[in-house]
Amino acid sequence: MAGEEPVLGAKKKLRKLRKKIRKLEAELAQARSFTHAVSPLAPKGGFPDLPEIGGVSFSAVAAGVRYRDRLDVMLAEIAPGAAIAGAFTRSATRSAPVLDCQLKIGGTREGGAALIVNSGNSNAFTGKAGERAVAAIVSEVSRVCGVPEARVFTASTGVIGEPLPFEKITAQIEGLHAAARPGAIADAARAIMTTDTFPKGAAKEIVVDGKPVRIAGIAKGSGMIAPDMATMLVFIFTDAEIEQPTLQAMVLELTDQTFNNITVDSDTSTSDTLLVAATGASEVRVTAEDGPFREALHDVMRDLAQQVVRDGEGATKFVEVRVTGAASPQDARTHAMAIANSPLVKTAIAGEDPNWGRVVMAIGKSGARADRDRLQIRFGDILVAADGWVSPDYREEDGAAYMKNDELVIAVDLGLGEGEATVWTCDLTHAYIQINADYRS
Amino acid sequence: MAGEEPVLGAKKKLRKLRKKIRKLEAELAQARSFTHAVSPLAPKGGFPDLPEIGGVSFSAVAAGVRYRDRLDVMLAEIAPGAAIAGAFTRSATRSAPVLDCQLKIGGTREGGAALIVNSGNSNAFTGKAGERAVAAIVSEVSRVCGVPEARVFTASTGVIGEPLPFEKITAQIEGLHAAARPGAIADAARAIMTTDTFPKGAAKEIVVDGKPVRIAGIAKGSGMIAPDMATMLVFIFTDAEIEQPTLQAMVLELTDQTFNNITVDSDTSTSDTLLVAATGASEVRVTAEDGPFREALHDVMRDLAQQVVRDGEGATKFVEVRVTGAASPQDARTHAMAIANSPLVKTAIAGEDPNWGRVVMAIGKSGARADRDRLQIRFGDILVAADGWVSPDYREEDGAAYMKNDELVIAVDLGLGEGEATVWTCDLTHAYIQINADYRS
Repeated sequence: MAGEEPVLGAKKKLRKLRKKIRKLEAELAQARSFTHAVSPLAPKGGFPDLPEIGGVSFSAVAAGVRYRDRLDVMLAEIAPGAAIAGAFTRSATRSAPVLDCQLKIGGTREGGAALIVNSGNSNAFTGKAGERAVAAIVSEVSRVCGVPEARVFTASTGVIGEPLPFEKITAQIEGLHAAARPGAIADAARAIMTTDTFPKGAAKEIVVDGKPVRIAGIAKGSGMIAPDMATMLVFIFTDAEIEQPTLQAMVLELTDQTFNNITVDSDTSTSDTLLVAATGASEVRVTAEDGPFREALHDVMRDLAQQVVRDGEGATKFVEVRVTGAASPQDARTHAMAIANSPLVKTAIAGEDPNWGRVVMAIGKSGARADRDRLQIRFGDILVAADGWVSPDYREEDGAAYMKNDELVIAVDLGLGEGEATVWTCDLTHAYIQINADYRS
Repeated sequence: MAGEEPVLGAKKKLRKLRKKIRKLEAELAQARSFTHAVSPLAPKGGFPDLPEIGGVSFSAVAAGVRYRDRLDVMLAEIAPGAAIAGAFTRSATRSAPVLDCQLKIGGTREGGAALIVNSGNSNAFTGKAGERAVAAIVSEVSRVCGVPEARVFTASTGVIGEPLPFEKITAQIEGLHAAARPGAIADAARAIMTTDTFPKGAAKEIVVDGKPVRIAGIAKGSGMIAPDMATMLVFIFTDAEIEQPTLQAMVLELTDQTFNNITVDSDTSTSDTLLVAATGASEVRVTAEDGPFREALHDVMRDLAQQVVRDGEGATKFVEVRVTGAASPQDARTHAMAIANSPLVKTAIAGEDPNWGRVVMAIGKSGARADRDRLQIRFGDILVAADGWVSPDYREEDGAAYMKNDELVIAVDLGLGEGEATVWTCDLTHAYIQINADYRS
């Protein structure tokens, strides 16, 4: 018995410590929720002033899909004859709205079009009920807005596997239709947010033959973000006049250079949807070869893609991973993604630790070609490793000082060929764990 | 000016909150370091009593490779004629000791053999200096222990990219040789630990024709753990008599069923090394067809592999992911790994959230074949999802209660074919972030 007492004492102490941990964790979560109300990486200046796009009007409403008193349904009405292109998740378990949109892209261009989106519930993995919910929403939007069902696009984002209370949405269509106006895109951007800490918008204007052409887009997404897009919804509107197949090809190619090059947590959503609608209201015709329009659309897409990373769940660092000199473009991408997705690299960045050994590890594990002795690794402009070892000029203090920046570049040259890739990611922090260990409960 | 004051007040508040967060984080880290001194998932009863293996003796010493006053170098001396088999990381940036071992496996069986291992420094990505360090250690062990250089195997684990202070190791060889004895395997298990919270050992004894055959093994590893083994060192000794090619084939096959089926963080180390030495001291001959020996070796390997997961950095849950009914074994493995590596699945488990939607997401993104409407998901025995939706009998309370267990089974049946795979993983917690955001600094 005498021998038991110290053990009992230790057990009691342990229980007290565990209780203290729970208390500290709760306090910490609360303190963090104040300071991290908006991602520290959010673009300065808040939501940008987006131009109105001829032929598109917006409205949003708090329909109570999941939470009360926040905008959660948006409607965009698009003038007759618009070309609509799209890119979607490749997930094998994609949501009912995604399947419906995929059937409609490339179909008729006759009549007006509408886009209706809700947050709070993704209507994914909801069986046949999910399809019925989409059908009910599409039918009501078609009736109220006077557009063909084949031109009504839906998207849903939020919790997976719970029935979508679609009546809450259909009950709002008349109000949304009545309220729609060209200037309300900012409300739409807010209505599609889930764990996002800021609404995301980007725009670009070019002038062709003296006539302005405008592009404005909104996006949501902050977790479940990896190629094949992420829990990401992106809606872009332009007044350019363009053939649908031309727009579609351009959108797919640019998606590969932008949204498919970002990763927050390597997880891919069942709901990713990117839609681009071109109304033609500018009366400027864009062809496949059109450099300036393509470049402007690329800029808007890259800007929105980077904003999604900047709002990565718990992110405190925005990281560009640049791989050059790979044996092929595919190898470059494989290496870049292995680095960007490595939990050990991402936690080192969170800890402001210039732990280039973990970058070496990630390259080694990626499966793509690498030669230890030809590899060069840079943090920003600082040459960290070369010739199979730490660079003789590298000083740990320099690396440590560089890691304190909010925006980092990790550059790797493989020394093997011409393959290049750039991807964007963020660090992996306590806040990511917090957000995702609690999201549903 | 009047309008500025509330802003200044808010900024001051924010600074104070951030300071409070830092203080809370420090307190929390300290409280956690007490309670988590040993993983809550560690096998009950501490390090097992491992049998002595005829023909093998061990010693360990605190050589100060990186830290003071802890065992960090171990020596195993193996009697002449032992068969030695090995499996290694496939990383393209593997360490100098791994490259050296790979050259030696399958070589001469003449003469005694030795295994020398250090923790604290992995001697990986250390250029030509790394090769020189290996050569110096091998040469000294060969001289002191009187075994051929071709029979001296080395392994190193710890920080990547820093020169290995090999003189600290070579200075200890004479003392290690003098101290070596059959019963000291537990010291060896301690000497190879890095972020491990407990030493790992496992053993099995079988009787063949009235004669006992023993297998005893030790392992280290708790992070950078994913197929192609992990920062994992595994050393197994047996007194069976077996041809080297037979042992080698058996080891590779069993590695695929054990160590290659665990993942902590999807990161793969540059140093993974598994060596199995068979001394023949039992005078029991094992052939390729030998069921009982193979099964015993499998048990020891699986036990050690699971211990590595149980010591996964920050782990509070041990998770078995069982996939059945996949279109092929490869598809089953791809699905199982996608689930086991998903940060969103792992954080849900940490939060004891029965968020099966994330399991659906992981299956969807894996790239392997899946049909939403044939999928079945079980948490333990609880049928959660079937027919493309949540099971009608499933109650959230049941799922939530199940998730409170320390040991969980997530079972997925694809309903497509005969492909099966089982992998083991752990949850993703604050402690993982803590350990890895601070490991080097």
